[in-house]
Amino acid sequence: MSDTMKQIVLASRPKGAPTPENFRLEELPLPTPGEGEVLVRVHYMSLDPYMRGRMDDAKSYAACIPVDGKMEGGSVGEIIASNAEGFAVGEFVMGGFGWATHAVSGTQGLAKIDPDTTPITYALGALGMPGLTGWYGLTELGKPKKGETLVVAAATGPVGSMVGQIAKAKGLRTVGIAGGPEKCKLAVEHFGFDVCLDHRAYDTAADLRAALEKECPDGVDIYFENVAGKVLDAVLPLMNAHGRIPICGMIAWYNEGGVGADAIEKTLTAPKLWRTILVNFLSVNGFIIANHFDRMPDFHKEIGPLISDGSIRVQEDITEELENAPKAFIDLLSGGNTGKAMVKVI
Amino acid sequence: MSDTMKQIVLASRPKGAPTPENFRLEELPLPTPGEGEVLVRVHYMSLDPYMRGRMDDAKSYAACIPVDGKMEGGSVGEIIASNAEGFAVGEFVMGGFGWATHAVSGTQGLAKIDPDTTPITYALGALGMPGLTGWYGLTELGKPKKGETLVVAAATGPVGSMVGQIAKAKGLRTVGIAGGPEKCKLAVEHFGFDVCLDHRAYDTAADLRAALEKECPDGVDIYFENVAGKVLDAVLPLMNAHGRIPICGMIAWYNEGGVGADAIEKTLTAPKLWRTILVNFLSVNGFIIANHFDRMPDFHKEIGPLISDGSIRVQEDITEELENAPKAFIDLLSGGNTGKAMVKVI
Repeated sequence: MSDTMKQIVLASRPKGAPTPENFRLEELPLPTPGEGEVLVRVHYMSLDPYMRGRMDDAKSYAACIPVDGKMEGGSVGEIIASNAEGFAVGEFVMGGFGWATHAVSGTQGLAKIDPDTTPITYALGALGMPGLTGWYGLTELGKPKKGETLVVAAATGPVGSMVGQIAKAKGLRTVGIAGGPEKCKLAVEHFGFDVCLDHRAYDTAADLRAALEKECPDGVDIYFENVAGKVLDAVLPLMNAHGRIPICGMIAWYNEGGVGADAIEKTLTAPKLWRTILVNFLSVNGFIIANHFDRMPDFHKEIGPLISDGSIRVQEDITEELENAPKAFIDLLSGGNTGKAMVKVI
Repeated sequence: MSDTMKQIVLASRPKGAPTPENFRLEELPLPTPGEGEVLVRVHYMSLDPYMRGRMDDAKSYAACIPVDGKMEGGSVGEIIASNAEGFAVGEFVMGGFGWATHAVSGTQGLAKIDPDTTPITYALGALGMPGLTGWYGLTELGKPKKGETLVVAAATGPVGSMVGQIAKAKGLRTVGIAGGPEKCKLAVEHFGFDVCLDHRAYDTAADLRAALEKECPDGVDIYFENVAGKVLDAVLPLMNAHGRIPICGMIAWYNEGGVGADAIEKTLTAPKLWRTILVNFLSVNGFIIANHFDRMPDFHKEIGPLISDGSIRVQEDITEELENAPKAFIDLLSGGNTGKAMVKVI
């Protein structure tokens, strides 16, 4: 067993899109678990858009990562040393181990994983935080009803694909949006969207809106918001009365100056946004899934069997080696991945 | 009985703030009620901010008023001729009689009023549409909890004053915003707000925000939105996690180019608005009270006795003569009224 470990820290705060220089790989001695702690050898580490927000020094629901601090995130790994009762060497666990090959952790927040039932990577995607995000946001806030129309972007991502597949199963018309023809093909053929539009094929929000309008002849009842930007601008005027917009993210605005705080969209103004909510009686709800982790068992009970029997499908995009995490993360923010992004660390 | 009546029509669509030239007074023969209809002599006619939206040719929840069409609105009056069973001459009714001295009306949508229990004007304000708007929006969408902090603007208006008084009775800290020191005094002394800030005393949203922040030491849990503009910009960053924003209007933006559709605020951008909803897990709900008129009996049952015993107070601003309605309406849009604006027509 090696007596060192590697981790990636935030070297500097990004201005706009992150660059490789914002990250730094460090090697340090392998830590020893204290009383009540375990040492985990990370196998797979998750890459998620929310991590971009943590790199900024802006007020958000979570504290930002300090400069020189370890990049945060969820991972799955194997316990290789244990000082904690009930957690044995050889068991697999998921936890917030950050961008690292190893981590010492208390048992609070550790979730055991059975590697024999589903691939352990599912705990980071379809059966983990992103899948729960899609399920919770759609069912609790989107309140889908048979015959309605749903629009979701990043349709092949772990959230969007979960949203689309659940909505389809509930009898909604599902319209995906994705970047590039290959992802659109995947959205329809693999994930079962009724149709998927390539946002890169439309220069303006107005052009995308015109295309969406054709695909949503009865308007849009649920817009599951995870990207914002041009897509929001395109969808907003198509919302039906009493429509619902759950908001779990806005990746299009993450790189624009303090998580979009100061960005100005020329066509989508605050008054327009606000007025649309009023005149269509929309229900707009921001949520962060960390507040709803108590629903994980309900989610697993409902969706687990559908993943096992193949009626809900999974797509993963796995990068090899911790060293390549920054590049994979930068790609993720510009839509370079296809499916749930993660890094195989072992 | 005179054999003519008067009405005010939309002479032309306003560009920005309405002017007297956008209205025209007409005299026409008194109509005769057909089968199942009544003829009403209007006593009081309501003036409400939503009427500004109807003057525009923009998509909204209600059809716009055609040019040369009668200005719409609710009124109370006395039946002076009846061809409708169950509606007798001498009875008082409320209905959508528009800006007019008389109207012929079917009985659908007519509500009888007992002039002996409360003043008939209350049917247009505290016990009518505006009161119901405040009650429904606050209780159903604002979900007030004891100890929380509420902010509402137009605090002496019929909606804001109802919101503030109900919230206060439920044990919330109530912070009003109003235009001018006299209204602020009224908000505190007559309507019982804990404090009221004069938005005219602050040049910028940032200045107003700084003042609000002092008066909301625990942040803002409910922002009841009826004005938007500078007030929204000021309040938004003060919202607590899990805050609620019911939206029933945005008077500050009504005059800015198609009900604010194309207006651009320099400091309050769409990304900022959207991001705040996300990172604070806000619940933002647009509503129009016409969709909830079925709740009127519940509202009357709960609030009626409190108005009768004086624990919820009423303030009315009554203009004499139909001819003066345009001026009173223009004043209303710039905050020139104090209390529920209406016109005494008889």
